[in-house]
Amino acid sequence: MLKLYYTPGTCAIASYIALQEAGAAYTVERIDFKTGQQTRPEYLAINPKGRVPSLVTERGVLTETPAMLAYIAQSFPQARLAPLDDPFAFAQVQAFNSYLCSTVHVAHAHKGRGYRWASEESSFADMKRMIPKSVGASFALIERNMLKGPWVMGEVYTVCDAYLFTLAQWLEGDSVDLSTLPRVIDHRKRMSERPAVRKVMDEQKS
Amino acid sequence: MLKLYYTPGTCAIASYIALQEAGAAYTVERIDFKTGQQTRPEYLAINPKGRVPSLVTERGVLTETPAMLAYIAQSFPQARLAPLDDPFAFAQVQAFNSYLCSTVHVAHAHKGRGYRWASEESSFADMKRMIPKSVGASFALIERNMLKGPWVMGEVYTVCDAYLFTLAQWLEGDSVDLSTLPRVIDHRKRMSERPAVRKVMDEQKS
Repeated sequence: MLKLYYTPGTCAIASYIALQEAGAAYTVERIDFKTGQQTRPEYLAINPKGRVPSLVTERGVLTETPAMLAYIAQSFPQARLAPLDDPFAFAQVQAFNSYLCSTVHVAHAHKGRGYRWASEESSFADMKRMIPKSVGASFALIERNMLKGPWVMGEVYTVCDAYLFTLAQWLEGDSVDLSTLPRVIDHRKRMSERPAVRKVMDEQKS
Repeated sequence: MLKLYYTPGTCAIASYIALQEAGAAYTVERIDFKTGQQTRPEYLAINPKGRVPSLVTERGVLTETPAMLAYIAQSFPQARLAPLDDPFAFAQVQAFNSYLCSTVHVAHAHKGRGYRWASEESSFADMKRMIPKSVGASFALIERNMLKGPWVMGEVYTVCDAYLFTLAQWLEGDSVDLSTLPRVIDHRKRMSERPAVRKVMDEQKS
């Protein structure tokens, strides 16, 4: 039985949705950022990075969303969540997920986690001012060059869709101009109507 | 025939080494950052992100180092550069590469690319001051928790080794205290003695 450690509103929701879409047998446990649960010894023993998500498997713990999404797709091949038998198409899935992880998520993280890369209050304020532009630019590339439509990879739904949907939840909070991203917003709406997504979104709010 | 666009000293060297280790048939072309070649229309037509690496295949262009490394490993299975038949072990490889991409490389990027996330000179200076600490902390986790030894994944050499070696080239420039990273430095030395690595390092200097 897989176990996902997650926090509502974080990138961990991508793996939560993927597990649900995969028809996996899994449990979830919430990590409360408000009380700093992610940095307590009990959680650091599971994930020394002190972050979510973590996925506990019978072989050990996995971290990093792109790795977990590929693992879920490979572990439940009947769910067809990635083109597993085509290295080029699989690499396109992975390139998309890597971009979300290392560019889109990183841009967003400068709103509240500036202390990872700087130490002055003035720098944090500067980073916050940049958020609509930096996050907006990272989504603009998706809008223009990466989202094939109707799903990220075209006609076939993949783990990329769960990940994009998850990070697109942050757009309003990041004050990105949604009118510049009609295809991303349309994708987000279509995703929100999927039963697996509705179930996860309802559960994280409960 | 694969074609790699790269720039000496960048993360693109990881894919260069992986292609060489794989015994792939490939060519390389340098992109000159000093003249801004990565943002010219000819290169943006290949990679609209305006970054290296890009890998041109007969099916299209791939970007993002973790995706490219997995693609190279899957395309040349006889080179055994990743545990392709074991989803959990493959996910461990991917988690390591994702961490290098989204945490280690991102920490380093704040030295010279602060304009991605801020706009004030004072913020850039603040970010630069943080580099030894932020890059050092990201390597400390590798030293302590991730590098199994002798190779990243233990007894078997994988694409993770090429990627770690590539980013470990930046340690001195980032003023990280090398004495805190004996296992990373030992790994770097061992890597530098591999024929494929020597060939790539010589070629990028020529």
